[in-house]
Amino acid sequence: MSVSTVAVDPSICTPLPVLGRDVTVPLVTGGTITYAALDYAASAPALQRVWDDVAAYAPYYGSVHRGAGYLSQFSTDLFEKARRTVAEFLGCRADDQVVFTRSTTDSLNLLARVVPADCRVFVFETEHHASLLPWRDDRVTYLDAPRSPRGAVETLERALADRDPYGPALVCVTGASNVTGELWPVRELAAAAHAHGARIVLDAAQLAPHHPVSLADLDVDWVALSGHKLYAPFGAGVLAGRADWLRDAEPYLAGGGASRRVARRADGGVEVEWHESAARHEAGSPNVIGAYAVASACQALTEAGWDALVAREQYLIDRVRAGLAEIPQVRVLSLFGDDAPRVGVLSFVVDGWNSSHFAAALSAEYGIGVRDGLFCAHPLLRTLLGTAPETPAECGAPSLNAIRASFGAGTPDEHVDRFVTAVRQLVTEGAKWTYRTEEGRCVPVA
Amino acid sequence: MSVSTVAVDPSICTPLPVLGRDVTVPLVTGGTITYAALDYAASAPALQRVWDDVAAYAPYYGSVHRGAGYLSQFSTDLFEKARRTVAEFLGCRADDQVVFTRSTTDSLNLLARVVPADCRVFVFETEHHASLLPWRDDRVTYLDAPRSPRGAVETLERALADRDPYGPALVCVTGASNVTGELWPVRELAAAAHAHGARIVLDAAQLAPHHPVSLADLDVDWVALSGHKLYAPFGAGVLAGRADWLRDAEPYLAGGGASRRVARRADGGVEVEWHESAARHEAGSPNVIGAYAVASACQALTEAGWDALVAREQYLIDRVRAGLAEIPQVRVLSLFGDDAPRVGVLSFVVDGWNSSHFAAALSAEYGIGVRDGLFCAHPLLRTLLGTAPETPAECGAPSLNAIRASFGAGTPDEHVDRFVTAVRQLVTEGAKWTYRTEEGRCVPVA
Repeated sequence: MSVSTVAVDPSICTPLPVLGRDVTVPLVTGGTITYAALDYAASAPALQRVWDDVAAYAPYYGSVHRGAGYLSQFSTDLFEKARRTVAEFLGCRADDQVVFTRSTTDSLNLLARVVPADCRVFVFETEHHASLLPWRDDRVTYLDAPRSPRGAVETLERALADRDPYGPALVCVTGASNVTGELWPVRELAAAAHAHGARIVLDAAQLAPHHPVSLADLDVDWVALSGHKLYAPFGAGVLAGRADWLRDAEPYLAGGGASRRVARRADGGVEVEWHESAARHEAGSPNVIGAYAVASACQALTEAGWDALVAREQYLIDRVRAGLAEIPQVRVLSLFGDDAPRVGVLSFVVDGWNSSHFAAALSAEYGIGVRDGLFCAHPLLRTLLGTAPETPAECGAPSLNAIRASFGAGTPDEHVDRFVTAVRQLVTEGAKWTYRTEEGRCVPVA
Repeated sequence: MSVSTVAVDPSICTPLPVLGRDVTVPLVTGGTITYAALDYAASAPALQRVWDDVAAYAPYYGSVHRGAGYLSQFSTDLFEKARRTVAEFLGCRADDQVVFTRSTTDSLNLLARVVPADCRVFVFETEHHASLLPWRDDRVTYLDAPRSPRGAVETLERALADRDPYGPALVCVTGASNVTGELWPVRELAAAAHAHGARIVLDAAQLAPHHPVSLADLDVDWVALSGHKLYAPFGAGVLAGRADWLRDAEPYLAGGGASRRVARRADGGVEVEWHESAARHEAGSPNVIGAYAVASACQALTEAGWDALVAREQYLIDRVRAGLAEIPQVRVLSLFGDDAPRVGVLSFVVDGWNSSHFAAALSAEYGIGVRDGLFCAHPLLRTLLGTAPETPAECGAPSLNAIRASFGAGTPDEHVDRFVTAVRQLVTEGAKWTYRTEEGRCVPVA
């Protein structure tokens, strides 16, 4: 693999301004360096534009829903406008609902609560725990890891065809793996699901920050995403899609906002009339700032232009993968192979290294923030790496987990270049500092 | 009732700086005026201090939990420090847990999920819907509205003594009514609950912004609160208290963060080892900014000093109640009578007026933001006001709901003075503008 030799349009080489781009951090070896945030897949920095929008709105913050004051009406309008902006960003169909949640995890837990009682759920074992775990144990079928996009579609088709009884079914699948960054064949999986009378929810936590996502174009029934991975870290996420299951189910949270009318019953209990709109599942005062931040990010990404964003990210992906490919001790994890399309998320192991040790050295000696561990996708990591011993390895000994670097719209070239250089130096020269194990993690000796 | 004649220390007459204090809004009658936010009970403005803290932190925002980078560690420390700050603010006992939720509604829904299967729940019908509705219908007993604090304790004692079987029980009670602002006898109710082998959760949504709340001092088992009512509107709330039910229950949200270890089972399913700490119920990336904002508010209120805050608020309460007492057409709603201690939350009806019309005029002609309706406490409002007709009243006709004004640490004297003057003028001179009904609400004619 080599660096793409396509002439890159300079206009796509400018990262979007993000908060923290000038933050410097101390190095254990002395001095400071600007922080290279390469953990976008966990939490991305806020876009400067998102922050500016939130800061401009904050003095106008007011209670929403039935507040009669000017700022209450302004805030209510802003909140409902945010819902429409997100609907447009996600290519929602006319009758889709957009529910503001707190995160993808929350969105998928909400969906799990509204799944009809007789519905089977199909999930690949390769998913993030947020997609693996919300479903009732007696309703879910876990599918073995496929080794190609084609294999994923075939596995799903077989499982759906063989389900007994051939009743309601839901497929939950990621758009881009939070471990390998590889794109899943969402459109094909959606077609397979629908051909077999099933519905499909797209976990777009890792896809939406990197690629356009359209429910209508992909023909998926729901999509879930997180603001904090979409450059809008203010506690809001989204579940968007078909209204019927949402409308037919008990409210996710019981309380004000979700209830239209509550009255004592003759028997002493209470009877409740619930809303049928998105408010049904949004009890409590909505997180207006969080929702507005998500909408602001949607607008900022749309205005920046997906063609430019995707091209720039591909350039960074090619650059970092080409760099790592020249270091034989580094093994990049993959389900679908080198040629699979992917987003800026990449996990790897380094021969002979403890991943926590390696990640600690990247931070302490190079000012690079990555992640180590199993990335809330334990079954996938076990499939890729084999069974780990019960006792975690000490700092100096190899571990059976991995290191993940991830980046996005705010990442300058220098961050990925520094990362590749640092990996090469650590592999060839070793760490400059001494590390010790503390509560199962490696930390520099003070 | 008369204005307190106690010499007020000038030091307690300065409101705390809040965002939006200089925001001007247009008047329908021409010109602009600074906005008087009198809907604190729904959502309070952010303290300037909270905003400044959030703004200072935002560039350092990073992924928490297993991020190895400097900002990840910084953010993780900040998040866990926020937990300790909140624990201290709430007078938590050594083994209490602090779970970050999104709001009081969310906190009480979480608690409802962890209540043991055989536990009866006792709730006064006077509670906010967030306290009324999360409990399983077949487990909850609604208690009729008491008309005095003593009556509340007696009603609860009787209900607990008579429960059959005399098994596990939970009492859910507000600290301060979101309708009348009246304080509930929390300490006495807690003593009654414990004397009868029951536990008690305090809905402190309306209490915590106005009074110190200590689990240890009040001897309550849990407390729930919302950041957006505590001058920290960034999508976070808190459930704090006894760890045992939380630890023994299924996680509130299934996903990453809550799960320590996930593995495929031999039968194809997955087995999960869940955390036993607060993380058990905090799946998904935590809302670090929201949690930090809540902690910042806790610190700011503590540093301002509760004695001064309470004294200043009492001065405002006395002022506004004395003013309204001189307007015979205004009836202030109360369960416990004029002498009951209260926070800065006050609901009223105006003879001959539609509440939505009145609230719209306060906004459009005076720049005052209040709330009208039933305040997510329908049974209480029906008890106080009688049964309403099915069809809401048109703008000009009296309605069977109320108007609520609420204020707090950021409220200057001028806001409550303007409010009293406006109420008097509207009652004596009528509205200056014409209003019409639109989607069940009164709005100024354009």
